[in-house]
Amino acid sequence: MTVYLTPSSNSVEPPLGSDLKGARLLISCPDAPGIVAAVAQFLYRQGANILQSDQHSTDNGHGRFYMRVEFQAEALNSRFATLQAAFVSVAKRFDMEWKMTRAKLQKRFAVFVSKEDHCLRELLWAWQAGDLWGQPVMVISNHVEVQSLVESFGIPFHHFPVNSDTKPAVEEKQLQLLQGQVDFLVLARYMQILTPQFVSHYPLQVINIHHSFLPAFVGRNPYGRAYDRGVKLIGATAHYVTPQLDEGPIIEQDVQRVDHRYGAEDMKRMGRRIERTVLVRAVQWHLEDRILVHGNKTIVFPS
Amino acid sequence: MTVYLTPSSNSVEPPLGSDLKGARLLISCPDAPGIVAAVAQFLYRQGANILQSDQHSTDNGHGRFYMRVEFQAEALNSRFATLQAAFVSVAKRFDMEWKMTRAKLQKRFAVFVSKEDHCLRELLWAWQAGDLWGQPVMVISNHVEVQSLVESFGIPFHHFPVNSDTKPAVEEKQLQLLQGQVDFLVLARYMQILTPQFVSHYPLQVINIHHSFLPAFVGRNPYGRAYDRGVKLIGATAHYVTPQLDEGPIIEQDVQRVDHRYGAEDMKRMGRRIERTVLVRAVQWHLEDRILVHGNKTIVFPS
Amino acid sequence: MTVYLTPSSNSVEPPLGSDLKGARLLISCPDAPGIVAAVAQFLYRQGANILQSDQHSTDNGHGRFYMRVEFQAEALNSRFATLQAAFVSVAKRFDMEWKMTRAKLQKRFAVFVSKEDHCLRELLWAWQAGDLWGQPVMVISNHVEVQSLVESFGIPFHHFPVNSDTKPAVEEKQLQLLQGQVDFLVLARYMQILTPQFVSHYPLQVINIHHSFLPAFVGRNPYGRAYDRGVKLIGATAHYVTPQLDEGPIIEQDVQRVDHRYGAEDMKRMGRRIERTVLVRAVQWHLEDRILVHGNKTIVFPS
Amino acid sequence: MTVYLTPSSNSVEPPLGSDLKGARLLISCPDAPGIVAAVAQFLYRQGANILQSDQHSTDNGHGRFYMRVEFQAEALNSRFATLQAAFVSVAKRFDMEWKMTRAKLQKRFAVFVSKEDHCLRELLWAWQAGDLWGQPVMVISNHVEVQSLVESFGIPFHHFPVNSDTKPAVEEKQLQLLQGQVDFLVLARYMQILTPQFVSHYPLQVINIHHSFLPAFVGRNPYGRAYDRGVKLIGATAHYVTPQLDEGPIIEQDVQRVDHRYGAEDMKRMGRRIERTVLVRAVQWHLEDRILVHGNKTIVFPS
Repeated sequence: MTVYLTPSSNSVEPPLGSDLKGARLLISCPDAPGIVAAVAQFLYRQGANILQSDQHSTDNGHGRFYMRVEFQAEALNSRFATLQAAFVSVAKRFDMEWKMTRAKLQKRFAVFVSKEDHCLRELLWAWQAGDLWGQPVMVISNHVEVQSLVESFGIPFHHFPVNSDTKPAVEEKQLQLLQGQVDFLVLARYMQILTPQFVSHYPLQVINIHHSFLPAFVGRNPYGRAYDRGVKLIGATAHYVTPQLDEGPIIEQDVQRVDHRYGAEDMKRMGRRIERTVLVRAVQWHLEDRILVHGNKTIVFPS
Repeated sequence: MTVYLTPSSNSVEPPLGSDLKGARLLISCPDAPGIVAAVAQFLYRQGANILQSDQHSTDNGHGRFYMRVEFQAEALNSRFATLQAAFVSVAKRFDMEWKMTRAKLQKRFAVFVSKEDHCLRELLWAWQAGDLWGQPVMVISNHVEVQSLVESFGIPFHHFPVNSDTKPAVEEKQLQLLQGQVDFLVLARYMQILTPQFVSHYPLQVINIHHSFLPAFVGRNPYGRAYDRGVKLIGATAHYVTPQLDEGPIIEQDVQRVDHRYGAEDMKRMGRRIERTVLVRAVQWHLEDRILVHGNKTIVFPS
Repeated sequence: MTVYLTPSSNSVEPPLGSDLKGARLLISCPDAPGIVAAVAQFLYRQGANILQSDQHSTDNGHGRFYMRVEFQAEALNSRFATLQAAFVSVAKRFDMEWKMTRAKLQKRFAVFVSKEDHCLRELLWAWQAGDLWGQPVMVISNHVEVQSLVESFGIPFHHFPVNSDTKPAVEEKQLQLLQGQVDFLVLARYMQILTPQFVSHYPLQVINIHHSFLPAFVGRNPYGRAYDRGVKLIGATAHYVTPQLDEGPIIEQDVQRVDHRYGAEDMKRMGRRIERTVLVRAVQWHLEDRILVHGNKTIVFPS
Repeated sequence: MTVYLTPSSNSVEPPLGSDLKGARLLISCPDAPGIVAAVAQFLYRQGANILQSDQHSTDNGHGRFYMRVEFQAEALNSRFATLQAAFVSVAKRFDMEWKMTRAKLQKRFAVFVSKEDHCLRELLWAWQAGDLWGQPVMVISNHVEVQSLVESFGIPFHHFPVNSDTKPAVEEKQLQLLQGQVDFLVLARYMQILTPQFVSHYPLQVINIHHSFLPAFVGRNPYGRAYDRGVKLIGATAHYVTPQLDEGPIIEQDVQRVDHRYGAEDMKRMGRRIERTVLVRAVQWHLEDRILVHGNKTIVFPS
């Protein structure tokens, strides 16, 4: 379950020149002595300078080892393939799954959305403001409400009405449209449940925002149920989508205080702000290769 | 379900002189025009000065009306019974359930605890520091670990070992011991589930601290399950105990951020701080008659 | 200093039909017995139903009394002038400063901004989403960067380049433009200091967002100074503008955690989110007449 | 200004056996390529296993490099001196200031306190609960209020009345008493300003809790001034003491929301909880060698 190591070879170069000179090395392997030494030694010999390095060991050093290194080096562009090839021997020695990516390459993503546009807007806005180093290449919706918004950003919009009967056929068309065009998907309040069949094409590459503090209020209408239960905090959760509804690895969560004066509608309105914040954080971390997955949990190495 | 209006006639006077001169009026009734006017007019004619007044209407003014008023008046001690008698006609007019209490009277409570003492300590400490205007009259435990701590505060300690076979008999003895001695109970990490039969003697008068952000992780071992689920925030919940385990009206909740470096033990340690804070807030609000219950929810009028 | 009682008679009716049927009564007066009774009695006799009522007494009931009541009544539109006239006798009895406003009337405001558009965007967006019940009637800037954004929302944009020499003349022109068109002003990252002369035309009617947790880092470059000081939380403050720079009554503040990895630029980026949230909250409260000013402090009666 | 590298050779062994088997290596040096590789290689060759490793580069890799490594190794006790000696050559190569400590050694500290006991209590309690791996060896106070509390924990209490005239002489006596007995000092609401002369004996080894969100409200009576300014959040700050009052490197800060209903006394009461939390965090991090100082800022590598 280490799909995050899939090469993102189909990532595009940014249209304009970038000063994102560095690269990232992500590693997952059985824990063992000498891993950090070997990786650091490798980078040093290649003339690379470590900018940031984070690591995590599960089970007190007797489980799995995770590492993320940001580094810089001269002439990285021309030497990148060589660098990757040279790392293979280190990786083999420790039975690593690994990925090396250039920071300047932008991951491409599609956004799925229904009628509510707040999460989509926040994503597009953060992208336009330069806070998200990625490329939203299309927006897919089962409704048309967000079309003009999307097109005002110069992003293609695709309308796919769907119901339970047509879902398999619609998903098939969506998969064809996405094929080779995107690295991952963002469900920005897409009120349809994707089939396991669909999800299997993008393992740990579909980020969903759920409008509750999971695992509380799995499923439909979480604000209504939060209101009925009389909770004193409402929340939102960004997670990777797996075949089990709302059960995938949690990337980020946040909450805000409510009290008896808040009706379900007030919670919904207030929750929009939390959803926006939480989803953008999760997408940003995904874009910057900051999220590693261990079983059903995430390890997030923050900026 | 408006048990909060039970008279707390058995509350004790504080041992030392107090400047808590005021009184509180709590009201619950069907919503109707003129309630606030009638209450305010009544207090004005009685020469009372309103210090704080809070109200809440459910269903946009078409449901139930809740109100809490703090007021002061000259010679309140000698006039209190007269004041209560005089209010009866106002109460009848609006079909009110109501309670009038003098602020200087301290509610008496028993604390139930097992081995972990952090919530008990925080309560005793807050009480000693004068932050809790109430009287802890005894501590009951199914273990002996906290005995010397309790007795160092000059509070009687009672040891009731219990298992599933002896529980009915033990609870019977506990009820006899509590009879007439306390106004409410605090379960400060009491790792036993009280029988519905026991709880029925103290309806909405038993406050429990649950070590999760309810309704997530109802039941046993919430920190372990929070760890397994990979949540990014852990929490605690203070609630009134009802026959349904962990389903009673929530009084207060809070959370704190965790990440992949936190093991289940770290979460437990960190959670202790949240539990302490949340439980003391709930007990303080209960002591100050700030909590009203509407169905399975609380209305908290904060200080 | 109770300028909030200035009649907002120049507020416009919303273009489309609204179901905001209620009205608000705001009161400030010397504390005395019987105020609540008199107000509640008045509303009851007028057939008004109280939806929400908040009050605050300074100096433990020996200072000034503040109150905000939301109420509904049949045929409020046609009866509103009568209602206001009838209240005069109550107001005189308690020496009240007061204001009665219909909830459906939208206050009109101008937004001042320089180059950074995040606060402006958030305001326009919240307005478009229906979260701000008010009317942004123009945007004024000393730069042109935000012009197309503003015009895409169908809002007039006015460009006023300014420097220290031209400031008096420019402000004179701005005042002429604003005259009779707006109820209040929002400085959404306007990097010019308004002259006391200008501010005196809009006393307690100019809301500014300052990018620090005031009173820390008054003045220029707060993020840079926060970085230099090594604080562990950064914040933002919305306040009313007075002639003393960054010293006016604070409406709202919030903070977010940072650590040693955050450079001044990261703080700036992160701070944008706090600024957006804090400013929109303050503007919303101002629009809904939730803010009363006592000396140099605000009393905010939240929704 | 890298006093944190002072050897803590006078730390005591814990009285009872401990399973804290590991060690910590703290490094500060000019940034350069190959540091991580050299350190990791060194530890690997010594048979040490890295448990946690954190690093930070100032000025984007062109300033100073800070690192903290937790590691385990067989027979660490007997080999520790050898390990230290062996590291000297690595340290010389990179011009490092460094410190290697065994995790099981407890730092010894004195607590200075005046009359208010909440911070002292929290420290003693956290220590008793096993959350603070250190040794409070004495409490020094200019008052006697906390004496019985301190002695109930079996800790020596020393009473040093002090005024501005006697301060130099009193500090001289305190220094004699502390000499060789403690590794650092904690000012747990000690309402005296230590002279620069005194502080110079414990550079970056005196932790103070200030009852405001610094740099707001430097100096006396911060809650009163926070109340007067009308802030919407109150806070507390733990920092290292330097000769400049309240200007030393900030270790930790936190805040809590207040509103117009909070008087200065309420803020004080509420602030106690923030102070307690913030101070204990800072002391815990200091005890675990998690704090490095760069200029007037701290780098905290959290657990």
